[in-house]
Amino acid sequence: MKLLKVDTLNEAREKLLAAVPQNLMKCERKALLQSLGCVLAEDLQSEENIPGFRKSTVDGYAVRASDTQGVTDSIPVFLDVIEEVAMGVAPKESVKAGQAVYVPTGGMIPEGADAMAMVEYCEKFDERSIAVYEPVSAGRNIITAGEDIKAGQVFLPRGCKLSPREIGVLASAGIHQPLVFKPWRVTVISTGDELVDAQAIPASGQVRDINTYSLSAAASRQGFEVAGMEVLRDDASLIESAVRKAMQTSDLVVMSGGSSQGEKDYTADVMDRLADPGVFTHGIALKPGKPTILGYDEKTKTILAGLPGHPAAALLVFELVIGWLYRKLTGQNEPVAVPARITENVAAAGGKTTCLLVELQRCGDLDGAGNRAVRNDALVRTPSSFQTSAADQKSAALQNDAPCVYRAVPVFGKSGLMTTLTRADGYVLIDMDAEGLTEGQQVSVTLF
Amino acid sequence: MKLLKVDTLNEAREKLLAAVPQNLMKCERKALLQSLGCVLAEDLQSEENIPGFRKSTVDGYAVRASDTQGVTDSIPVFLDVIEEVAMGVAPKESVKAGQAVYVPTGGMIPEGADAMAMVEYCEKFDERSIAVYEPVSAGRNIITAGEDIKAGQVFLPRGCKLSPREIGVLASAGIHQPLVFKPWRVTVISTGDELVDAQAIPASGQVRDINTYSLSAAASRQGFEVAGMEVLRDDASLIESAVRKAMQTSDLVVMSGGSSQGEKDYTADVMDRLADPGVFTHGIALKPGKPTILGYDEKTKTILAGLPGHPAAALLVFELVIGWLYRKLTGQNEPVAVPARITENVAAAGGKTTCLLVELQRCGDLDGAGNRAVRNDALVRTPSSFQTSAADQKSAALQNDAPCVYRAVPVFGKSGLMTTLTRADGYVLIDMDAEGLTEGQQVSVTLF
Repeated sequence: MKLLKVDTLNEAREKLLAAVPQNLMKCERKALLQSLGCVLAEDLQSEENIPGFRKSTVDGYAVRASDTQGVTDSIPVFLDVIEEVAMGVAPKESVKAGQAVYVPTGGMIPEGADAMAMVEYCEKFDERSIAVYEPVSAGRNIITAGEDIKAGQVFLPRGCKLSPREIGVLASAGIHQPLVFKPWRVTVISTGDELVDAQAIPASGQVRDINTYSLSAAASRQGFEVAGMEVLRDDASLIESAVRKAMQTSDLVVMSGGSSQGEKDYTADVMDRLADPGVFTHGIALKPGKPTILGYDEKTKTILAGLPGHPAAALLVFELVIGWLYRKLTGQNEPVAVPARITENVAAAGGKTTCLLVELQRCGDLDGAGNRAVRNDALVRTPSSFQTSAADQKSAALQNDAPCVYRAVPVFGKSGLMTTLTRADGYVLIDMDAEGLTEGQQVSVTLF
Repeated sequence: MKLLKVDTLNEAREKLLAAVPQNLMKCERKALLQSLGCVLAEDLQSEENIPGFRKSTVDGYAVRASDTQGVTDSIPVFLDVIEEVAMGVAPKESVKAGQAVYVPTGGMIPEGADAMAMVEYCEKFDERSIAVYEPVSAGRNIITAGEDIKAGQVFLPRGCKLSPREIGVLASAGIHQPLVFKPWRVTVISTGDELVDAQAIPASGQVRDINTYSLSAAASRQGFEVAGMEVLRDDASLIESAVRKAMQTSDLVVMSGGSSQGEKDYTADVMDRLADPGVFTHGIALKPGKPTILGYDEKTKTILAGLPGHPAAALLVFELVIGWLYRKLTGQNEPVAVPARITENVAAAGGKTTCLLVELQRCGDLDGAGNRAVRNDALVRTPSSFQTSAADQKSAALQNDAPCVYRAVPVFGKSGLMTTLTRADGYVLIDMDAEGLTEGQQVSVTLF
């Protein structure tokens, strides 16, 4: 039985990484706003200083710091206002001792000045003079030229996923068409005689197809482009022609179902017939997720993945293997894992990496409702009352002031159940050699 | 000076929440895959049991558990195979003592059987009989009818943000057009005489416009629809006509720049002239983010926000105020905050909530490179080598087995600097009444 010669999760990952060519990822230039969520494909260096000039971070007066030494509310310093700098315009004058120049927030600092006195601490006498009531130190309220980005400096590295923050940095550097990795084109194929479309009413023994929807959504969230979705009966020739067609148009073909020991599990055979070198992983020592088949075809440069039919297991393997590979090839880091303490003893599955689903609960929970702070919370709804409840305020305070430490409550359930997955906020990987988890032990929860 | 009468962050949030009507959010039905990332607008109850029948989680034989009691490798039990159930078809026979029925993974369990013996532990003699070498307990390898979702049960609550997991659950329940909240239409207006387009080369004193890009990206990431982006000179009439136009088409008008004390800061006046009741928050006791103006217009049902001109501050306030309001109105929970220990003493800004930017570093870092595990890592790139480095393997191991605990390293920098924001992985809110942070103190880091 092929499935007994399974790889460990790390073996499967390394085989996959070794099977694909280093030049697999293609690049493309995208308009700045369209590049949100894309992964930068090159180190970005700035050709210029950003900002290109000394600018003020406040509305006020550019002065010589030395002129303000020792001034107080009762003993201000009086300065001559020699110019008012307009936004976007370079100052004409240079500031000498006893002089000041009005500069608005973001305005350019004139020569000679080395600090900005905030308007709140200045009093205007007439057009020509002010009193300054607070001393300012040199450099105060000033951003120097190149303080944000120095010319020649790598300010965004390859592998950086573009969030609104990076979009802003790109705009500031005048990069309006960043070079990003071309997302994979993916075809998702779900096989099974029992499957009916999500819109149909299943007859006895039938179930609605889940995996084309959940895996396509997972692909979209990775940034992939879904090239096709197909639900097929367990028919070797049907599957073979669908996969052959998909290999022409897709970088990744994800099949689900038909990857285990059943009499109608054609996935591996089809992949071996169509792909060269073909299948290199027949099963992963992962619970859930054992019936996972991985292969590659060099001619069409297509990654082939046969995922478990169980929807929850399929999603987990997609994240742990396909998501991992994509992050690796694009130089992204692995997602952050939230430290938490496990609430009960959990036995490890001998010889397998266990993917334990957990729900995160804040410790010392004040409203006792297992108030959770996780984005995609599927069970606990915040009060729909539009007035913030006392509990809300407390837990908000808790989140703001007090350290927020989490309990990880195992969510047990068969891998065929989707709702166990939506009940969970994330998962803990228990190493195959580990003895399991002991109540109170600290674990790393990778968020969904 | 209006800006000296500032609200606390919570006051500003509560005023905003009180200003908008409870029926502000509109709903719409979206095709299942298009609803990824949308927020569910109603509690979802299932009309049927999911699954609708008892199904097998393995390939094997449906048996009576009692028949397998006490069997071993050397003393198996012999059972008559009376039927082979096909996928998607209901069994004809009922299993009696001494009988078994072949059922593939996901297949329907026949009457009479109460457990599944995995094919791996069965030996087939002929078409009519098998030997079972391992005892199975009642219910083993079986998902009962309604075990995933019971008829009438609320399986997804209002306020749940739809991830691939929820998409899968919706598919399983046959909901192909979920009711979700209609995302806000947003117009982003950036004002400043110094601003030039991202594609231009700024002259001395000029800077490229950042905020229309970064704030539009932030809006897109919230799921909002960007209705318009405008960069305007600081001209009261220009701004007024742009805002008036935007109020007709948008649920939210976000302005940046012109919200502080400068002589050309028209935002508040324009908002008060156009909106009724108009501006209710003139500044927030938040660092950075003080020059924030919030208002509402009942006639056009438009939220008006004047954000700081500093790009980093503008993004933070957008997340802390606008993002908060949207999550509140749609019943979403606040994002998870990662527990970490602060690496140095940090003074609090007296009388202000401080939003401290921090970089997360894993403690006991093995490769010493401050190896970070955060998604949008902007500084540390993973080795581009396609072979996993030893350090990588160690840190991977670290992430999988060892508890992953983080150091929060403050990222200091003026709020005008975008790169301070991309260096940071998240932020810590220091309460206005807090004394600041002490080295080693535990904090909650909200990830960007």
